[in-house]
Amino acid sequence: MISTKMQTLAQNNSVIRAMFEEGKQMAAEFGAENVFDFSLGNPSVPSPAAVNAAAIDILQHEDDLMLHGYMSNAGFEDVRQAVADSLNRRFGTSYGAQNILMTVGAAGGLNIILKVLLNPGDEVITFAPYFVEYKNYVNNYDGNLVVIPANIPSFQPDLEKLAAAITPRTKAVIVNTPNNPSGAIYSAETLAAMASVLESKSLEFGQPIYLISDEPYRELAYDGVEVPWIPHFYANTMVCYSWSKSLSLPGERIGYLVLPSEMDEAELIQSAASIAGRVMGFVNAPSLMQRVVARCVDEKTDLAAYAANRKLLYDGLTELGYECVYPAGAFYLFVKTPEDEAAFVAHAKQHHLLLVPGSSFACPGYVRIAYCVSPETIRRSMPAFKALAGEIGL
Amino acid sequence: MISTKMQTLAQNNSVIRAMFEEGKQMAAEFGAENVFDFSLGNPSVPSPAAVNAAAIDILQHEDDLMLHGYMSNAGFEDVRQAVADSLNRRFGTSYGAQNILMTVGAAGGLNIILKVLLNPGDEVITFAPYFVEYKNYVNNYDGNLVVIPANIPSFQPDLEKLAAAITPRTKAVIVNTPNNPSGAIYSAETLAAMASVLESKSLEFGQPIYLISDEPYRELAYDGVEVPWIPHFYANTMVCYSWSKSLSLPGERIGYLVLPSEMDEAELIQSAASIAGRVMGFVNAPSLMQRVVARCVDEKTDLAAYAANRKLLYDGLTELGYECVYPAGAFYLFVKTPEDEAAFVAHAKQHHLLLVPGSSFACPGYVRIAYCVSPETIRRSMPAFKALAGEIGL
Repeated sequence: MISTKMQTLAQNNSVIRAMFEEGKQMAAEFGAENVFDFSLGNPSVPSPAAVNAAAIDILQHEDDLMLHGYMSNAGFEDVRQAVADSLNRRFGTSYGAQNILMTVGAAGGLNIILKVLLNPGDEVITFAPYFVEYKNYVNNYDGNLVVIPANIPSFQPDLEKLAAAITPRTKAVIVNTPNNPSGAIYSAETLAAMASVLESKSLEFGQPIYLISDEPYRELAYDGVEVPWIPHFYANTMVCYSWSKSLSLPGERIGYLVLPSEMDEAELIQSAASIAGRVMGFVNAPSLMQRVVARCVDEKTDLAAYAANRKLLYDGLTELGYECVYPAGAFYLFVKTPEDEAAFVAHAKQHHLLLVPGSSFACPGYVRIAYCVSPETIRRSMPAFKALAGEIGL
Repeated sequence: MISTKMQTLAQNNSVIRAMFEEGKQMAAEFGAENVFDFSLGNPSVPSPAAVNAAAIDILQHEDDLMLHGYMSNAGFEDVRQAVADSLNRRFGTSYGAQNILMTVGAAGGLNIILKVLLNPGDEVITFAPYFVEYKNYVNNYDGNLVVIPANIPSFQPDLEKLAAAITPRTKAVIVNTPNNPSGAIYSAETLAAMASVLESKSLEFGQPIYLISDEPYRELAYDGVEVPWIPHFYANTMVCYSWSKSLSLPGERIGYLVLPSEMDEAELIQSAASIAGRVMGFVNAPSLMQRVVARCVDEKTDLAAYAANRKLLYDGLTELGYECVYPAGAFYLFVKTPEDEAAFVAHAKQHHLLLVPGSSFACPGYVRIAYCVSPETIRRSMPAFKALAGEIGL
């Protein structure tokens, strides 16, 4: 009775989300302290205190009808300007409110862009490993996601394969740096080279290829590594941002799109994106949270806590013989499976370790371990990882 | 460069939203007190005090990581249960958390249901006058909206025409009672008769026809009129609700779907709806607002204020010779245009009166006047309505 598309989706429901639900059930059965749920990218560091303080102050002092009311679909003008000003300070850009569209998280922003760009049969390219939902998002608009295989072990994008994959149907390329799940950060050199591939292919086919930069992990870069601002490298770049990770607000669904004036058809895309958000049923980003993030636009999450987790887990696992790249950003360890991936994930579950298979990210032979958990969880999980290593003869 | 669908949408952008933007510009030019913006359904009554009090208490006392974190895509379990309990108390139903899916407003809920149900070419029926976005929502999934012409002057649905419009491609019927823009409330008799049409047609074509009840105005019924609970009449009913109007929270994007266990394929639809919300980019309803509405589930808006506005505007306009039905619910007056609709809307604008043409609701020859404004705005607009009446010889 349900649609054909939804039948397929229901059959291939997100492994990550299924594991999240399973983790809750296991916690109820075995006790939360005996289940090591590394499945979900749910921040473990609370929001900066300024976030709740701003929300309370706004609730106490701002006009109630404005605060909870409709505004332009693109968001409150002053909020958009505050976001633009913050980007301008950081990246030397000259954005105005017209370049910012407030969205229901980065997922909302990505869907808006894809709705704006895609005709049925259009192609969108991304690089494995990639966030599992990209395929669903592209399919929402009857586009085809074209996946460039993972470039192991650096996890930097393979630009020769990118050039070969571009066709006259290519509308966009999605990049995600810092990357979920590999933790790789694309370097300035990589991005400059990617821009030149996209420029020459845009010329060759006589139409722009848009670069969509999905940046929920922008602020999660360790050891002083700079995450380059991609619109500096390629004019036809749109940025999807979310405060889910940077302010620990994943449940609040608050983010924004940057739609630079420098890109082709900028005004048309800005106007279409605002309409798309409305007709897709988002209407606007949640109003109170818009006003909160405007006040907290320069707040920082506790990066040191994630950095400590990263070291703790990486050291613990590599000491036990597990193999992985030390991630430069985000909050995941992408670990090579010492045996068949499905078998390893199943074995891990017997030890109450919930790990997401790499094949969910089009990169089989790996598992993603989210270290946005308490250090205690990491410490208490080590005997389980050790028992698992022993059992499979690592 | 943008998609064909978006080109069409950009060309036919919402008259209501365009007017909202125009109203803001006119207010800047002529002064807010000299512009009478009756275009948008933005509540004029602030949220009950309990709403902000609950939000502040939650921000001060609930666990920050839980409060702003991911939860199951369908929403917090305790919030869903609180909504189910409230419905059970009011309507004698026996819903559980599994029957409630928290959504990004009613617009989010409607899109989720349509995504779940529609294959390309499927038909969805609704009754004029109808909320302009239904057509866009149905087109998002390549469905066709079939519109039954308005039944003037009662604005009750024409059930003979409904029966004649149902085909083997009919997947769903959308009703909206209390109705935007007519203010009509469908009676129990009407709903029982509609149910029997849908039951016999479902039998005839050997497949369920789902009834989608879009109920953002459920609590806005005047003079003690009861708004019937539609699932009591027809088992295959899904309800889309929003707190936009009832708690004056339109900007917060918070609502829910009721997916009753009594409907065909209930479990499949519940599960598919939860997945649909995620892959469409909603992910989940905003988390803080979920927790707020759970505490405010039995709060009421200041209905007396809207009732007073209704009388003030209705009395004022009918005294001037304008013609309209006294609305039973919602917060709109649907007024017959004394001259050609487009000419009347343009004349009204010369008097700084912003009125939405009825043709936006597939009901030409009318204008919608939203009376969710201050009583002062209504009083101060009367000379403008009078001058307009004089000018067109009313």
